[in-house]
Amino acid sequence: MKKHNFYAGPSILPDFTVKNTAEAVINFAGTGLSILEISHRSKEFEAVINEAQSLFKEILSIPEGYHVLFLGGGASTQFAMVPFNLLNKKAAYLNTGVWAGKAMKEAQGFGEVVEVASSKASTYNYIPKGYSIPSDADYFHITTNNTIYGTEIREDLDINIPLVADMSSDIFSRPVDVSKYAIIYGGAQKNLAPAGLTFVVIREDILGKVERHIPTMFNYKTHIDGGSMFNTPPVLPIFAALQTLKWLKENGGVLGAQKRNIAKAGLLYQEIERNKLFKSTIPNVADRSLMNVCFVMNEEFMAHEKPFLDFVTAKGMVGLKGHRSVGGFRASLYNALPIESVEALVKAMQDFEKSIK
Amino acid sequence: MKKHNFYAGPSILPDFTVKNTAEAVINFAGTGLSILEISHRSKEFEAVINEAQSLFKEILSIPEGYHVLFLGGGASTQFAMVPFNLLNKKAAYLNTGVWAGKAMKEAQGFGEVVEVASSKASTYNYIPKGYSIPSDADYFHITTNNTIYGTEIREDLDINIPLVADMSSDIFSRPVDVSKYAIIYGGAQKNLAPAGLTFVVIREDILGKVERHIPTMFNYKTHIDGGSMFNTPPVLPIFAALQTLKWLKENGGVLGAQKRNIAKAGLLYQEIERNKLFKSTIPNVADRSLMNVCFVMNEEFMAHEKPFLDFVTAKGMVGLKGHRSVGGFRASLYNALPIESVEALVKAMQDFEKSIK
Repeated sequence: MKKHNFYAGPSILPDFTVKNTAEAVINFAGTGLSILEISHRSKEFEAVINEAQSLFKEILSIPEGYHVLFLGGGASTQFAMVPFNLLNKKAAYLNTGVWAGKAMKEAQGFGEVVEVASSKASTYNYIPKGYSIPSDADYFHITTNNTIYGTEIREDLDINIPLVADMSSDIFSRPVDVSKYAIIYGGAQKNLAPAGLTFVVIREDILGKVERHIPTMFNYKTHIDGGSMFNTPPVLPIFAALQTLKWLKENGGVLGAQKRNIAKAGLLYQEIERNKLFKSTIPNVADRSLMNVCFVMNEEFMAHEKPFLDFVTAKGMVGLKGHRSVGGFRASLYNALPIESVEALVKAMQDFEKSIK
Repeated sequence: MKKHNFYAGPSILPDFTVKNTAEAVINFAGTGLSILEISHRSKEFEAVINEAQSLFKEILSIPEGYHVLFLGGGASTQFAMVPFNLLNKKAAYLNTGVWAGKAMKEAQGFGEVVEVASSKASTYNYIPKGYSIPSDADYFHITTNNTIYGTEIREDLDINIPLVADMSSDIFSRPVDVSKYAIIYGGAQKNLAPAGLTFVVIREDILGKVERHIPTMFNYKTHIDGGSMFNTPPVLPIFAALQTLKWLKENGGVLGAQKRNIAKAGLLYQEIERNKLFKSTIPNVADRSLMNVCFVMNEEFMAHEKPFLDFVTAKGMVGLKGHRSVGGFRASLYNALPIESVEALVKAMQDFEKSIK
């Protein structure tokens, strides 16, 4: 049975990516060698990383002056690299979830950190607005999509200090005005590639303003100068990322993705509103994530939580259990998830509702 | 044509690893999902990482008190993490090659660094001996195998301060007395897994002795406490590492590997000595690496260098060009390289010699 993959990450990738990667594990680019065994300095792999970087720029419409880096270590490593490279005196952070909070905490090891606003007291169920950002901060850090809580900043903010965004779970889900950001980074294991790859989009002129000693591997300059090949990069995940980017380009780019994501999330949120068993955990509609739809059973039906999970599991749906800090359910609807999977979930919600007296 | 893969890394892996990984990209552990798309928190993947850690310990006979970590970022990240976590006042380094030198340079950002000996002046063509290690150093760092120059420290050193070893290119090639090391680390892309995975074997009691603030991801304690799952680990490379470890166990473990490696390297070094065209770049036989065999044309045959490379390339041999800092040829004979590939190279050397008047 073909599974409906609602995992929050690592998560579903396009069939095109899976199929081409499986082939490359056997024979990469006609070399007679596996992608597992090929030198990263081979001309065949250099073509892959170059094309992946240029397609990344093309699809996100990245302006001149920015670099695309493919690194290891995950977004959690970026939580430290950002302040290592940018924080002179003071940084400002918006606290919209566990990951945003971890990024903020990490920065405290490097200088003064101002939390401009936090939704922590309400289990992060909204995106704070109307906060003020200290104009003397070196940068302002946001997490555009909060995977655990199901909230999302769906528009590019206009602010007047350098903006740094963790876009781990919504990169490529919509058009982004990259010129408004100094750095966009993220783990690739949602909308791009398998686990083990971190992307960093960085405007070069943001660097060189801190005095501290930065170890070589934690210095963005190292990776810019090395064309993301200072040391051996994660070869297979970069190959897979290229496949996803090709698939995305063929399917209307980020505008096409956005259209499909609005349709998929719309379908599910509509059913959550309609169905007497469920409710969204995010009251403010504008704050609801298109990537991670969090919902719980209404109080009076709470006893049906486990049976509902069993019900959908039996229908081949995986990854629907909510994060322990929210409970209930979470359906992750990343780019590669077909609308048929959302339709199957909606149908299961309706069927289950009918079965409840 | 089946290729003979002599790449220095990423490099040849067992067919068993390649085949099982290709299958897992299509359907991992009967989940109906690709290993590219599976949650690292799924019970199926947790079984993989647990088995990989325990087999790693079993095959290397790792005593109690040590942890096995699977991280991202490559050995180059460890160059900084080691002093970040261990260097209080002073560290001692043995400079046996470019990578050893990079590790040493990185440590200079954290405290006093003593270079106990260096073979740099002779293009690193030997392993220094008879040096003295300051007894008040926090640790002594060595690179057991020098991939670029073809030298190797083939025995475990007896010293009386904590010993830290980069074993990127000879891990699992021979038995190691792990109890003599505080930390053994390396990139996995030679004898273990595809690029994107770093292994760290660490004795827990070595930690907690420095005062400085260590960012979360660069603190070994984080990864020990998180069971190497503090953040999303490189899922597919860990799966592939498990396959290689299973293959190694089936094939006599590290003793079996050592026996085969001695036979393979012996065959090639013998031909280099015998053949009038070639000579080893490492005069001292005891210092010659079993993993990376470096050799050059004798002066009078130098004009045949390019033709010889073309000759072996036409026979399906890849990765034999020497590193630019040494020139000539380098044959990497990692665990997974079959002796048939070495025999084919030896035969090609003999055939080419006959063709030269």
